[in-house]
Amino acid sequence: MSETSGTYDVVVLGAGPCGENLAERTSDAGLSTVIVESELLGGECSFWACEPSKALLRPVLARADAHRVPGFGAIAEAMDPAAVFAHRDKLAAYWHDDDQVAWLGSVPVDLVRGHGRLDGPRQVTVRSSGGDTVRLSARYAVAVCTGTDSALPALPGLARVRPWTNRDATSSDTVPGRLAVVGGGVVATEMATAWRALGSEVTMLVRGEGLLPRMEPFAGEMVADALRASGVDVRLSTSVASVTREGGPPAQVRTTLSDGAELATDEILFATGRAPRTGDIGLDTVGAAPGDWLSVDETFRVRSVPEGWLYAAGDVNHRALMTHQSKYQARIAGAIIGARANGRPLDDGPWGAHAPTADSVAVPQVVVTDPEVASVGPTAREAERLGRRVDVVDYDLGRVAGAVQYADGYRGRARLLIDQDRGTVAGATFVGPGVAELLYSATVAVTSEIPVERLWHAVPAFPTISEVWLRLLETRRDSAATVRGAEADF
Amino acid sequence: MSETSGTYDVVVLGAGPCGENLAERTSDAGLSTVIVESELLGGECSFWACEPSKALLRPVLARADAHRVPGFGAIAEAMDPAAVFAHRDKLAAYWHDDDQVAWLGSVPVDLVRGHGRLDGPRQVTVRSSGGDTVRLSARYAVAVCTGTDSALPALPGLARVRPWTNRDATSSDTVPGRLAVVGGGVVATEMATAWRALGSEVTMLVRGEGLLPRMEPFAGEMVADALRASGVDVRLSTSVASVTREGGPPAQVRTTLSDGAELATDEILFATGRAPRTGDIGLDTVGAAPGDWLSVDETFRVRSVPEGWLYAAGDVNHRALMTHQSKYQARIAGAIIGARANGRPLDDGPWGAHAPTADSVAVPQVVVTDPEVASVGPTAREAERLGRRVDVVDYDLGRVAGAVQYADGYRGRARLLIDQDRGTVAGATFVGPGVAELLYSATVAVTSEIPVERLWHAVPAFPTISEVWLRLLETRRDSAATVRGAEADF
Repeated sequence: MSETSGTYDVVVLGAGPCGENLAERTSDAGLSTVIVESELLGGECSFWACEPSKALLRPVLARADAHRVPGFGAIAEAMDPAAVFAHRDKLAAYWHDDDQVAWLGSVPVDLVRGHGRLDGPRQVTVRSSGGDTVRLSARYAVAVCTGTDSALPALPGLARVRPWTNRDATSSDTVPGRLAVVGGGVVATEMATAWRALGSEVTMLVRGEGLLPRMEPFAGEMVADALRASGVDVRLSTSVASVTREGGPPAQVRTTLSDGAELATDEILFATGRAPRTGDIGLDTVGAAPGDWLSVDETFRVRSVPEGWLYAAGDVNHRALMTHQSKYQARIAGAIIGARANGRPLDDGPWGAHAPTADSVAVPQVVVTDPEVASVGPTAREAERLGRRVDVVDYDLGRVAGAVQYADGYRGRARLLIDQDRGTVAGATFVGPGVAELLYSATVAVTSEIPVERLWHAVPAFPTISEVWLRLLETRRDSAATVRGAEADF
Repeated sequence: MSETSGTYDVVVLGAGPCGENLAERTSDAGLSTVIVESELLGGECSFWACEPSKALLRPVLARADAHRVPGFGAIAEAMDPAAVFAHRDKLAAYWHDDDQVAWLGSVPVDLVRGHGRLDGPRQVTVRSSGGDTVRLSARYAVAVCTGTDSALPALPGLARVRPWTNRDATSSDTVPGRLAVVGGGVVATEMATAWRALGSEVTMLVRGEGLLPRMEPFAGEMVADALRASGVDVRLSTSVASVTREGGPPAQVRTTLSDGAELATDEILFATGRAPRTGDIGLDTVGAAPGDWLSVDETFRVRSVPEGWLYAAGDVNHRALMTHQSKYQARIAGAIIGARANGRPLDDGPWGAHAPTADSVAVPQVVVTDPEVASVGPTAREAERLGRRVDVVDYDLGRVAGAVQYADGYRGRARLLIDQDRGTVAGATFVGPGVAELLYSATVAVTSEIPVERLWHAVPAFPTISEVWLRLLETRRDSAATVRGAEADF
């Protein structure tokens, strides 16, 4: 029960991908940096989200691919869950953070294990699980990178039901006979895909009118069609009225739905959104509200806290809740803290080294369902809401030679948004098997602000799925020619 | 044995991808256009190259992927060649060109079937297989899009051996017990991959010191390693001294090698390069040399023919022998012919509508082997030869989280070339499973001339293989920091 103290230039709360990257950047900038973590270094992504979920899903998608090409000979009818779980365990590093600890040792960043709380301006108190206390002072900045927890709805007695969250859904090593999935977003669709393929009877309970409501509508429609075809019972416009767990045997979860129907399952997964991990980090001691998302300015300073020493990057600031985007923010926030501490001006014009420009115009996302969904930039509806005038160009991926080669009976769709005023690519959505790696081309197109006319010179190799880019340009040219009645060089 | 005649604005020789696209563009420009073809509309690509070869290879690669993810349960030990051949036959449209004929009917382009020969300036005479003659006159242009044949070496008696060319290798519906593959380029490595997987014992006879000599050396090395691991006998620095076919039974091919060794196989594939299909198209009647590649200026006019009415696009001009690049040339050449005929000035500055800029700086290529190889722009060696100062940045793809997810024991490598003077991406090479669709991101990066600093804002989704882009940027930053000893914002 010791008490020690230390002073650093920068104190980072949270050692997920965001905290790790931010600390590396401030350290690179010559600032002494300490990182505080109460759980595993590497965070949600490494142990209960991206890594284990994709480890469950990659075998599912590879298997789906196999069924769509000839010549395999026999493929076993059912997956081998034990083999998948063993693989998943390995990719989750068996829930040990030795790799991250080793990495941290390679950069000059100190680590304090324990629960860190703000304790007045620039002060952080860390309480270890053993009861030791470390008092940290920050000369320049404290950065909150604590991320999110799963958000559960306010249903009476829900805790007693012991519902699955993303953590159980990614780490379970038994296959529930029947699984209810509450939600229709990324976690819900991905986990419904995984557990259905592993053998569960899956029922999705989706409050909204479709899946993946933040994506182009056709994405959710195609994923819903495919989930249904795989045997998932997708119930839209359906809420949970109440849920109880009965002792059994066999123990089971009984869910009453908004329409009065009842559903009996072995487990129930709530994939109903995320809540910021800000409830118990001492925000009240610096004049901010515990439990809230930390609203930040364009340099990641928390708006509600004066003097500009408190930063928040990654999911906790609610700008873009994705690992890769939190790392992007972390790199920039770390560089900003470094520049300010070193008295250097910020390069904060659009696309500058200290401007998180991509957060507003080029956030990529991949949904690892079958079909995959990959998008960057706004949807057509978002663009309209933002007042951006865009041309919407669609193409049936199943007509692309590379897609026909990729899979028998390929079903997919691509949408390109072209900014009418700037003549550049505003966004893109691809839905179909094997499109995940196609996304980065769209991200580079948006980020580079390449004129659409120049894109004609970016030749996709034949026969790849990427040739859809040519088809999209041709489709746009043909429709423009129809409108103008004029000769088009492109 | 009729004789007819017709006058068009544009006469196109050859209805492969190049001829089809060129004719569509001149037609779009309002020019009456006729296309002449002696074989199948769609050309080598549709029937004896890209389409059937990828139809053979996609099952091989999907199967290789399946072996690298867990949970499939049992996979049959051997492929089912009959199923693969049936699939291949379908993707080669059973060697019927009905689809292309239907497409041609949808655009205002006429078709004359038969062997077309130039017959003096702007004149083409077509002889049908039935002996009919059609005399065509071109008001503005004749465009040669006749492509290439496989080039066979000058070995005595080779014709009597009845060697395989790309046509046999892509259309055979029997699996040779033993297959010799002469050559080490794209066709040789792809067909060795396919036929080995389908069951042949394959021996590669490669004159050079490595495979894929036009790519970065590590590409050929990794493909050679993988071919050897799959059981292919890869013999480098080995030429064919002589070859005979013995009557048998069983009939077999006996090959004597440059080192005196003898090799007995059931078939021998010569994948030893391409020769232009210009030997019998009447070039002598317009002052050009039959059998030569048709050297063209930057507007695709054949240099050796005066008055600028003879164009050559696609493989036959030897600029970049790939289907997608020939379509690119065709689009631009067609637009150029259209602009000139309509008296409009050319937009022929770099990346202009009438400038085939990508031909010199951004030619993409995908080699469908296991591992796949995908590249765009010059190799490091080519850049040096061209006097371009480039930074070479390498990264081990097996260390990228998305690659680890993609395949157990992922082996791959990425190389980025950065133009030191311009601060842009000059080229990229990716080697590894699943990298084919990653290439287009590099093609857009090269074509857009996005500054490398801006690329930090092009965020790859986690965990995709595309995240290698971030690793490449980090690697470059770290090496630059080591050199400069200075703080880097990026």
